[in-house]
Amino acid sequence: MIINKSKVVIVGAGAVGSSTAFSLVTQGICDDVVLTDINQGKAVGEAMDLRHCIEYLNRNVRVSAGTYEDCGDADIVVITASAPYVPGQNRLDMLGTTKKIIDSMVGPIMKSGFDGIFIVISNPVDIISYYIYQLSGLPKNQVIGTGTALDTARLKCLIAQKIDVDPRSVHCTVMGEHGDSQMVPWSRVTVGGKDFFNIVADNQDRLKGADLKQMVHETANAGWEILHRKGNTNYGIATTTAGIIKTILYNESRIIPVSTLLCGEYGENGVFAGVPAVLGRNGVKEVVEVRMTDEELLTFKKSVAVIREFSSQL
Amino acid sequence: MIINKSKVVIVGAGAVGSSTAFSLVTQGICDDVVLTDINQGKAVGEAMDLRHCIEYLNRNVRVSAGTYEDCGDADIVVITASAPYVPGQNRLDMLGTTKKIIDSMVGPIMKSGFDGIFIVISNPVDIISYYIYQLSGLPKNQVIGTGTALDTARLKCLIAQKIDVDPRSVHCTVMGEHGDSQMVPWSRVTVGGKDFFNIVADNQDRLKGADLKQMVHETANAGWEILHRKGNTNYGIATTTAGIIKTILYNESRIIPVSTLLCGEYGENGVFAGVPAVLGRNGVKEVVEVRMTDEELLTFKKSVAVIREFSSQL
Amino acid sequence: MIINKSKVVIVGAGAVGSSTAFSLVTQGICDDVVLTDINQGKAVGEAMDLRHCIEYLNRNVRVSAGTYEDCGDADIVVITASAPYVPGQNRLDMLGTTKKIIDSMVGPIMKSGFDGIFIVISNPVDIISYYIYQLSGLPKNQVIGTGTALDTARLKCLIAQKIDVDPRSVHCTVMGEHGDSQMVPWSRVTVGGKDFFNIVADNQDRLKGADLKQMVHETANAGWEILHRKGNTNYGIATTTAGIIKTILYNESRIIPVSTLLCGEYGENGVFAGVPAVLGRNGVKEVVEVRMTDEELLTFKKSVAVIREFSSQL
Amino acid sequence: MIINKSKVVIVGAGAVGSSTAFSLVTQGICDDVVLTDINQGKAVGEAMDLRHCIEYLNRNVRVSAGTYEDCGDADIVVITASAPYVPGQNRLDMLGTTKKIIDSMVGPIMKSGFDGIFIVISNPVDIISYYIYQLSGLPKNQVIGTGTALDTARLKCLIAQKIDVDPRSVHCTVMGEHGDSQMVPWSRVTVGGKDFFNIVADNQDRLKGADLKQMVHETANAGWEILHRKGNTNYGIATTTAGIIKTILYNESRIIPVSTLLCGEYGENGVFAGVPAVLGRNGVKEVVEVRMTDEELLTFKKSVAVIREFSSQL
Repeated sequence: MIINKSKVVIVGAGAVGSSTAFSLVTQGICDDVVLTDINQGKAVGEAMDLRHCIEYLNRNVRVSAGTYEDCGDADIVVITASAPYVPGQNRLDMLGTTKKIIDSMVGPIMKSGFDGIFIVISNPVDIISYYIYQLSGLPKNQVIGTGTALDTARLKCLIAQKIDVDPRSVHCTVMGEHGDSQMVPWSRVTVGGKDFFNIVADNQDRLKGADLKQMVHETANAGWEILHRKGNTNYGIATTTAGIIKTILYNESRIIPVSTLLCGEYGENGVFAGVPAVLGRNGVKEVVEVRMTDEELLTFKKSVAVIREFSSQL
Repeated sequence: MIINKSKVVIVGAGAVGSSTAFSLVTQGICDDVVLTDINQGKAVGEAMDLRHCIEYLNRNVRVSAGTYEDCGDADIVVITASAPYVPGQNRLDMLGTTKKIIDSMVGPIMKSGFDGIFIVISNPVDIISYYIYQLSGLPKNQVIGTGTALDTARLKCLIAQKIDVDPRSVHCTVMGEHGDSQMVPWSRVTVGGKDFFNIVADNQDRLKGADLKQMVHETANAGWEILHRKGNTNYGIATTTAGIIKTILYNESRIIPVSTLLCGEYGENGVFAGVPAVLGRNGVKEVVEVRMTDEELLTFKKSVAVIREFSSQL
Repeated sequence: MIINKSKVVIVGAGAVGSSTAFSLVTQGICDDVVLTDINQGKAVGEAMDLRHCIEYLNRNVRVSAGTYEDCGDADIVVITASAPYVPGQNRLDMLGTTKKIIDSMVGPIMKSGFDGIFIVISNPVDIISYYIYQLSGLPKNQVIGTGTALDTARLKCLIAQKIDVDPRSVHCTVMGEHGDSQMVPWSRVTVGGKDFFNIVADNQDRLKGADLKQMVHETANAGWEILHRKGNTNYGIATTTAGIIKTILYNESRIIPVSTLLCGEYGENGVFAGVPAVLGRNGVKEVVEVRMTDEELLTFKKSVAVIREFSSQL
Repeated sequence: MIINKSKVVIVGAGAVGSSTAFSLVTQGICDDVVLTDINQGKAVGEAMDLRHCIEYLNRNVRVSAGTYEDCGDADIVVITASAPYVPGQNRLDMLGTTKKIIDSMVGPIMKSGFDGIFIVISNPVDIISYYIYQLSGLPKNQVIGTGTALDTARLKCLIAQKIDVDPRSVHCTVMGEHGDSQMVPWSRVTVGGKDFFNIVADNQDRLKGADLKQMVHETANAGWEILHRKGNTNYGIATTTAGIIKTILYNESRIIPVSTLLCGEYGENGVFAGVPAVLGRNGVKEVVEVRMTDEELLTFKKSVAVIREFSSQL
């Protein structure tokens, strides 16, 4: 008898992939972390750097560099790969390039015998998640895009800073596309059980000029604000991904908004979009169907339409 | 220059006090934990037992047995003392006994120069908290009763088990008296952003026969259910208290329902009752005034009236 | 595909068993904790109390009350049961009673299909561990007594307090019987890489009158010192047990002194005794054979002889 | 009364500085993290990215971008700045550039009223630490270089991998210069209390060809091995720095090898070098004087001579 180990393979050892590994190691979330990269030396270097952390941490996590074959007995494979930005390319060109990268990965991963859960970070995440779902042939619960999980964390911060509370006491959900068309069902936002509209009414000083549209825009735009200041974004998405992995590996049944295949929920079918979902050791256990106002639902469906439209060009 | 230490003194080294210390040590929440007890030997024994834990934990916390003088430079003093149950005594008799115990404590604690935050666990917690507030002369933000913080955790569990989600994804607040008259503003309960009434509507199978009144009763009664099975309750209240301490010492501004002095909120004055509050390094930063239905507000005010009525007999 | 869960069953929901569960929950070490007890109500009460902790912790751990059948798919079963103290009984009488309790447990546990790792706390732990090893028929690596793991933590505290360092920076190992005959290979004790004898030489002020024999006695006696002050010992042993479980479930390969079957190591055979061992997901991976002075080895072998002598009376 | 906050300012928001901040946030080690950088936009971007992590972590840590004025009430200031590599420059040229950068920092930091603890990462760390000690005028216990703390973690990994144990069960200390001349007192290395030479003797298979000189070289060279594969090193040093900060802020008295001013220890004076030290809320509480063999001591003193020689050129 041998106690099963929990193993996460991260495909792509760039800033996002290596920071995700760092977060897993620092939090002690799994037994084994394997980094793979087209540039094998990069993966080896990151693994070395990460192994040196253990002395000052609470848990001994094993980190190594590997290949697609390591996915065979992995619980989770994280896909971070994306097309490098080439000046002059438009969004569709980039999608084409990313698609080719994904093509080259999913085959060997599935050939390794992988039957775990894909967590997809690669953008446009809703579309790439769907594409990996189709390519892999895995059941829908086993392919998860990070979707609006990070956007939700960002909106929580934005609201929390304005009224000086812990972001984790703000309950809101960003939904739809992980992109410009994302939306927030404001009618469902609460802080400490208090309706957000009442908070606005009671906090004219602190929320002076709080413009909901502006807040949605700031949330959707936060990635770009970071990008043009530091050249990339990695810590937020790494921690979000580690949070999703923790919930799955520990079978917590925590509700996190992720990109998952809609099958009738919200009246949508055959599209991946960001919606709150119960996550456990099977991946997506259940989609939560939040009741919104008619206007909110319309905005959500418009966002889904944007994903579907772009997806059709794939 | 010396970096300030964070120090928690726990008054009463019984099951609740020592489990609270154990939770602080295991989570590594503060630098120093001091246990005091009328039975000094008991406090010494608990401190010894707790010190032996460090080898297998993530942080070196110092634990010792002490006296009221140790409160002088403490950040937080936890009051766990309560009257022993004497058959034949009624609720008022017990309150009288507890009052005397509190009288004997607060004097020497304040004389030590204590100017930190009281966290009161002693029951009836809403009344004893108010009494300590009056005796100590400390500002209202510095006296906090655990109030309905544990009841809220219990209701989350109850709901979570029925629909198989993480209790931390259930957002609800138990309010009013930490006792039989406590109430739940059901109109404000959400799970993953979804209204609880819609959850009930969508989950007839899992929530079949879910009776809201029965759930409130089960929550209020959970302590007794545990008590008659194991003879006391300690782990839940210890973890709740450690959670409140963490939020204060780390200045998190997390919203937790605690018993605090109402000064106009919910139309109430001069009474301690369980309401959601933003907690930080000053103690209670702000009471959150949740908007409820008229019926819910009435039930809340009835519960507050129960506290006030009992308090007047003190 | 389903990610495997990690499950710990604790047999005996007394102070030691429930504190062990509390430590597992607070640290978030496994997915499922099941408590069993002859008094089923006690186990149910403890499980309820522990479930209420989750709201204020970092991980959702499921806690329930169960039966021996729950051991079937458990990774680890913790045996805490021991004979109640009956005035007038001698040590051998008590062993006889504990033996009967163990007899009644191991059969149904093995019948459940259990093929994981036993962690034995019941005293006399070296003898009961051996007995469970024989009864269960499991390979030797799968039966582990807590042995001198707690004694080692206690000695670290004792040394650490005298010279004011973190106990975790003291490197020492208590070996042999978890009882009066336990010994310390002082020639192997270091603090920050410095030989303990040199520390004594350099710290005449702080270690004035430090008597090694006295320190060994204080360590062996610490349990009694706690017992007569608080009526039992639970937090130290609970944290030690949780530490062993963490190392096994997370496959850390940490070295902890535990009671394991000696098969030639230290020239001993067919006896369980406390020795440093590498622990991982197979249980005991390897016994570390520390080189001691001739005198130390003699003392160790005398301690093993005490275990063997007592064991022969079983 | 207000509970004191713990505040860490990180000077330099490059890969090392931002990863250190990420480690502090992920582990929840302090209340406030402030990032400063000559490129203020970079610091703002990193702070934004880090704030978005909180939703998926166990503690609400506040992260912001700031200026030297933020050091006024900081407990710890981390100096990560270093000269950019310019082809053709020799080691001394680079030191000259770094010196100028340090000059521009220490003045404004001290002017802010800073009276906390400097943690210096900038290379050559032993020399820069001494320089900051002189410039700042702070007592010696308040200026700490990361020294051989990371080298020690690296050697632990190297040994641990060969014999398949947890690196944290390997007890060894790299001493002297954080550079090519660093040394290991092998006579003091133990694993699970067992002398390393005995481990070599007993593990001919696993340690076949283990060459101590080669292992020291591999340790000293690990940074370069990582550098040429990934372009920098950040995770190991970030976690090491966070570990030092944790030990100081939590007053743990853990022993970690750091670069500190020697005042007679090891017969050395007026030089910063890597030696094991007890760290607490005053910074360096005490240097541990390990007894080595004569040969080892000679090698250590040669390494110190290298630091002194280079330092004299400053």
